[in-house]
Amino acid sequence: MKLWDKGFELNKDIEFFTVGDDYILDRRLVKHDCAASLAHARALRKARLLTAKELAEITAGLRKITDLDARGKFVIKREDEDCHTAIENFLTAGYGEAGKKVHTGRSRNDQVLTALRLYEREALNELKARLADFAGAASALARAQGRIGLPGYTHMRRAMPTTVAAWAGCFAAAARDDARFADFLLSLTDQSPLGSAAGFGVPVLNIDRGYSARLMGFSKAIENPIYAQFTRSKFEPAIMHLCSQVMLTLNKLASDLVMFSMPEFGFVELPEAFCTGSSIMPQKKNPDVLELVRGKYHAVLGEEFKALSLAGNLISGYNRDAQLAKGPLFACLDTALASLNIMATVTGGLRFNRERCVLAPELFATEEAYRLVRQGVPFRDAYRQVAAKFRGGAEPGGAG
Amino acid sequence: MKLWDKGFELNKDIEFFTVGDDYILDRRLVKHDCAASLAHARALRKARLLTAKELAEITAGLRKITDLDARGKFVIKREDEDCHTAIENFLTAGYGEAGKKVHTGRSRNDQVLTALRLYEREALNELKARLADFAGAASALARAQGRIGLPGYTHMRRAMPTTVAAWAGCFAAAARDDARFADFLLSLTDQSPLGSAAGFGVPVLNIDRGYSARLMGFSKAIENPIYAQFTRSKFEPAIMHLCSQVMLTLNKLASDLVMFSMPEFGFVELPEAFCTGSSIMPQKKNPDVLELVRGKYHAVLGEEFKALSLAGNLISGYNRDAQLAKGPLFACLDTALASLNIMATVTGGLRFNRERCVLAPELFATEEAYRLVRQGVPFRDAYRQVAAKFRGGAEPGGAG
Amino acid sequence: MKLWDKGFELNKDIEFFTVGDDYILDRRLVKHDCAASLAHARALRKARLLTAKELAEITAGLRKITDLDARGKFVIKREDEDCHTAIENFLTAGYGEAGKKVHTGRSRNDQVLTALRLYEREALNELKARLADFAGAASALARAQGRIGLPGYTHMRRAMPTTVAAWAGCFAAAARDDARFADFLLSLTDQSPLGSAAGFGVPVLNIDRGYSARLMGFSKAIENPIYAQFTRSKFEPAIMHLCSQVMLTLNKLASDLVMFSMPEFGFVELPEAFCTGSSIMPQKKNPDVLELVRGKYHAVLGEEFKALSLAGNLISGYNRDAQLAKGPLFACLDTALASLNIMATVTGGLRFNRERCVLAPELFATEEAYRLVRQGVPFRDAYRQVAAKFRGGAEPGGAG
Amino acid sequence: MKLWDKGFELNKDIEFFTVGDDYILDRRLVKHDCAASLAHARALRKARLLTAKELAEITAGLRKITDLDARGKFVIKREDEDCHTAIENFLTAGYGEAGKKVHTGRSRNDQVLTALRLYEREALNELKARLADFAGAASALARAQGRIGLPGYTHMRRAMPTTVAAWAGCFAAAARDDARFADFLLSLTDQSPLGSAAGFGVPVLNIDRGYSARLMGFSKAIENPIYAQFTRSKFEPAIMHLCSQVMLTLNKLASDLVMFSMPEFGFVELPEAFCTGSSIMPQKKNPDVLELVRGKYHAVLGEEFKALSLAGNLISGYNRDAQLAKGPLFACLDTALASLNIMATVTGGLRFNRERCVLAPELFATEEAYRLVRQGVPFRDAYRQVAAKFRGGAEPGGAG
Repeated sequence: MKLWDKGFELNKDIEFFTVGDDYILDRRLVKHDCAASLAHARALRKARLLTAKELAEITAGLRKITDLDARGKFVIKREDEDCHTAIENFLTAGYGEAGKKVHTGRSRNDQVLTALRLYEREALNELKARLADFAGAASALARAQGRIGLPGYTHMRRAMPTTVAAWAGCFAAAARDDARFADFLLSLTDQSPLGSAAGFGVPVLNIDRGYSARLMGFSKAIENPIYAQFTRSKFEPAIMHLCSQVMLTLNKLASDLVMFSMPEFGFVELPEAFCTGSSIMPQKKNPDVLELVRGKYHAVLGEEFKALSLAGNLISGYNRDAQLAKGPLFACLDTALASLNIMATVTGGLRFNRERCVLAPELFATEEAYRLVRQGVPFRDAYRQVAAKFRGGAEPGGAG
Repeated sequence: MKLWDKGFELNKDIEFFTVGDDYILDRRLVKHDCAASLAHARALRKARLLTAKELAEITAGLRKITDLDARGKFVIKREDEDCHTAIENFLTAGYGEAGKKVHTGRSRNDQVLTALRLYEREALNELKARLADFAGAASALARAQGRIGLPGYTHMRRAMPTTVAAWAGCFAAAARDDARFADFLLSLTDQSPLGSAAGFGVPVLNIDRGYSARLMGFSKAIENPIYAQFTRSKFEPAIMHLCSQVMLTLNKLASDLVMFSMPEFGFVELPEAFCTGSSIMPQKKNPDVLELVRGKYHAVLGEEFKALSLAGNLISGYNRDAQLAKGPLFACLDTALASLNIMATVTGGLRFNRERCVLAPELFATEEAYRLVRQGVPFRDAYRQVAAKFRGGAEPGGAG
Repeated sequence: MKLWDKGFELNKDIEFFTVGDDYILDRRLVKHDCAASLAHARALRKARLLTAKELAEITAGLRKITDLDARGKFVIKREDEDCHTAIENFLTAGYGEAGKKVHTGRSRNDQVLTALRLYEREALNELKARLADFAGAASALARAQGRIGLPGYTHMRRAMPTTVAAWAGCFAAAARDDARFADFLLSLTDQSPLGSAAGFGVPVLNIDRGYSARLMGFSKAIENPIYAQFTRSKFEPAIMHLCSQVMLTLNKLASDLVMFSMPEFGFVELPEAFCTGSSIMPQKKNPDVLELVRGKYHAVLGEEFKALSLAGNLISGYNRDAQLAKGPLFACLDTALASLNIMATVTGGLRFNRERCVLAPELFATEEAYRLVRQGVPFRDAYRQVAAKFRGGAEPGGAG
Repeated sequence: MKLWDKGFELNKDIEFFTVGDDYILDRRLVKHDCAASLAHARALRKARLLTAKELAEITAGLRKITDLDARGKFVIKREDEDCHTAIENFLTAGYGEAGKKVHTGRSRNDQVLTALRLYEREALNELKARLADFAGAASALARAQGRIGLPGYTHMRRAMPTTVAAWAGCFAAAARDDARFADFLLSLTDQSPLGSAAGFGVPVLNIDRGYSARLMGFSKAIENPIYAQFTRSKFEPAIMHLCSQVMLTLNKLASDLVMFSMPEFGFVELPEAFCTGSSIMPQKKNPDVLELVRGKYHAVLGEEFKALSLAGNLISGYNRDAQLAKGPLFACLDTALASLNIMATVTGGLRFNRERCVLAPELFATEEAYRLVRQGVPFRDAYRQVAAKFRGGAEPGGAG
């Protein structure tokens, strides 16, 4: 039975189309919805809208669902539409009156939002942990092999000398700034939407929104209920943008590694166990994992774009379109987490090859100009002197 | 056993990450890969690279797989990576030598491409059929209720009078032009990539690519093997762009209907069986199906963008990133097909309400100006005369 | 004076904001609007809505504007808002009554659309010409230096041998298919929107839309006026998508060239006159032109997505948002045309270096396997034999 | 003379193409580059790389440029390529030796980055000020007209009653959270890139990067020079994402207002001075300004995605592609600032119409259910009772 069942039959094709894959996506929200429902039930009890017995029953029911879910046994059927309905139906089936009361003073709109926000908090914290792991792997590489020299490139041309330490340190620094972004988003989203109901608050009943907010670990409840709904279109893309940022960090690393590990360069070797082969060319060792991380950056971008594009040109208040951002949100976070994980592994397996990391003479041209500067030659003149020398050679860098 | 197995072990995390959900996505390619493999085997026979017996065995094996697949019984395991491996392994297990020969003169690269192209042809033809159905539903509506007048809007302000016939006809016309686009893409993609192998053709062996192309119903084989690989990044986004075009047609229709069916307008009614309700507000009848079609336009856009963005800044020749466009391609076509289907149903259920479709006087202002024009007043003067009259009124359009 | 002036004052900030840079963008539309206005005037004459004298005056006036414009002397002032107003004001100032009549039976909506479509036709034809030039440059390169061998890459790893002819031929083939796309768009957009007026046709007056369509060289007028308006949101993104396709062709070429011309590869040399330098590193010769062409692909993508994203979630009929696609359309076409031009120049200047294009032994591994196949070894067994041999070596391809 | 001039001639077409419109875009960076150059010169003096006299000359020269620029008289010629060259050339022309020394210990790469970062800081602070103004206008509206009741919508269907106070408060709250985002970005970008040079630091010379950082008001210098370069691809899209967020706030407001001001609703009136007209329909008063703000959201999205898409798949170190994000960055900030400004004006001019803001009975259905809840009826039962009552009516909400 749907939450909004009023006795008329929904066209089956329409039902199938509107439910989509929500009943599958929602699996990961079950535990969060239980946590939020428990906080809500306690606030209902505080407002005398539940008896102590009813609260105890709901508490027991939610615990039972959480346990089932932890063992992968709580099933959301397609007819349930989503986890929220499945949970309410479970409670009503088990506890009758109490189950029918749990939805008092909330709407599915703020219920979804609250569960999502709890999920997002967990995911952002996990993202921070993975960013720290990845930064740790990059720093460990810098410590272990950092003194090996590396040609630095601009415009994909040899520019100046650098080191493995500087190169690996770049990604550690990027990951640390990405983690600061995650911290900001944790603070931005630290506002409970519960009690905003359908986006216009709860009349008649007098429920303490600050109380349920605190129970769930939020600093405050969002005061304006219309804004509470709007945050769905604002906070979710912001989180996806962070995922884009994280994936950009990894895309850069993967792009470097694909090139630096080409036999033509040979700066670094990927362990054989990280490479795949070709169905036709017997000699191939391909860096698929790097190419996929590189490509998944764009997949995450596309998801961010979906969420932003679909939020446009719609009036205030919940519109069903918003639900289509749920899958993209999950996809972005899943991809960022899995990619950080795999790239920490990859980083841990890299072996730089000192013999191949040749620092060609032209990398030192700027240094040469600076030596002239130290002798008092104005920089622009020093630059031209050194340039003339390099131009003398048949093909700059041709020694390559 | 993987096609490229050479005896070393792949790191399990890396393997899991690189396989991704390909083994699931590939289910829909099984029948197409069988068709392509059959054509390829016949070309191998023609080149004397298979015996008549081997060809017969491969033919039987492929038929068996096709049958299993039609009954949902052909399984692609995660360890198989993809359908191509599962099929080759099936043939090798059943027919030994013959199975080991089927991959002669092709690479997984051109094999995937060929299967995708057969899938795309089927999907584009289905798209044309659905576009025709949808255009038919719109035309039927125009015939049945077309004479009902309807306010025409520009800038979301009442502009000039129109009719249900003109309004519905707009979507039929759009769908017909979308179908012309599908025709073009069918002709553009009517080039067999089979035999381009890894993107550099097949040396030593002498296989007739035109023959296998004709067997699969292509007009020709793509001559340049490097371009054959490149078409993956070009034709797929083009097909996704068509899906964006189709979804834009439906987004416009859905946007109109969400507004025209608001009780405040009441121009048209959606059958109750097409509407969903609210978990909190007992009175609600919501047009979720329309909102989802509207929103899915942006989801398709996002997929198109993924495919285009990930193809950039990569050198020629296959890069694994390309595989990440497979899911988006399927998602775009699935969404376009399902949405056309559901909107044909919705269009068939619409009931325009003649009483509510009031043509307010200001809609006729242009007509009034034109009557003055017929009397010889220059248009710009007629315009200003009529404008002055309307400005006299307290609130233009306020009669609403 | 604005076309819609009714005597009240527009807030200056609002006016400034709404005009935006339209009055600048519109410069390129002047000649097209004159051509369309002339066809419209002739249709008005045919409908007896202009006298012969008035038509002669309008014809003279439009010719005068076209001449001024060709010499860069026709000015569109910010207060004019756009070229359409500037043109009508010019006619009214010079010819009074006749000028006031030219807007009879059309709206700025269909007027803009018509001028855009004439511009688009011209631009698409120019695109075809540039694609042909570029394909010609690629073919010339294939003829002149085509026999030089080149390593073919997959996964950015040496795969199989190829040649400059195959490599250059890929881009010629891509450009030819892009030109077929342009042909399709020329045929799709070969429909005159003139007479659809504000999107609801022209009542009272009896103007022959087919006549004006033919005068402008269109095969037909768009029958459905609501669809005519909608084509703006459909045809323009389709044209921009073609620009994305063209830029993808060039992005691939530029990506190849940036890498192939690295001193570490040295397959090809860019003339010194095509390279820029660094402000700090005296030795640098940078391929900026290639990097910019590569980057501009993404700029064009972004424009395509603007146009698609902004068209969503809006009801039928003109909405001002549509005008924001004008700049993106121009930007896409300008970029594609300029980039084709410059890359034809670049392609003409390439010098492949036979000495550096070494075909390393592992490129022939597949050939070796095929030789075993010719001797009767099943391909999969041949593959494994050759693979074992290459795995024996310390590092496949390590010979670098 | 270009900074990298080494005596060979650049192909004119290539030069024209590579300079693009940088020399125009850079106008806004002149003052920031002067500020950064002054800090750099002082750090050079501290390192004894400039004499006191040279520092004084450079200081005077930079002051002169800043003054000229403030009066719009500092010209960047196309041949200059960019503002950095124009400034160095001005100094060299005026002060010879001193001018030739100012580029010591920096590259154009970190110079551009530093100027951009100063510009970004100024722009983010201005954004905060405009967000505050806009939030102030929304709050003022809430105070002045807040008690007027307003129908609240979900799924574009009447849902529950709300007020102008709640509605306007939503946008004030959104703007305040957008400002928190700006604060975060100010803190994220509070790192000086100066001295990272071409991305590999400055050898030989011993320049105090922390000193120049403090002189420019940064908390610190970015330690890792490779990361410093990478921040360009990370911080700029982050700022553009904030612009997307701001524009989404305004897109929502504009979408509401376009609908609420339709004569069919009449909830609110836009002053006549804010509306534009039609060239054909004499009665029209169009809300172009709202439609443009709505549409510009998508334009900003497109710019954000350009910047993100073009940063992908490129190796570490400066690539010229990055420069193509400069125009998009400026476009995003310009659009956000102008749109906030205009929407503060629009918000200040709104007049809600109490008579038209009718609260239809079905808006109170939830309230009715809650009254039953207070009497002890479980919510789900109360919901069904009220739903049955509303379903009895011919058409829910049909009273509209």
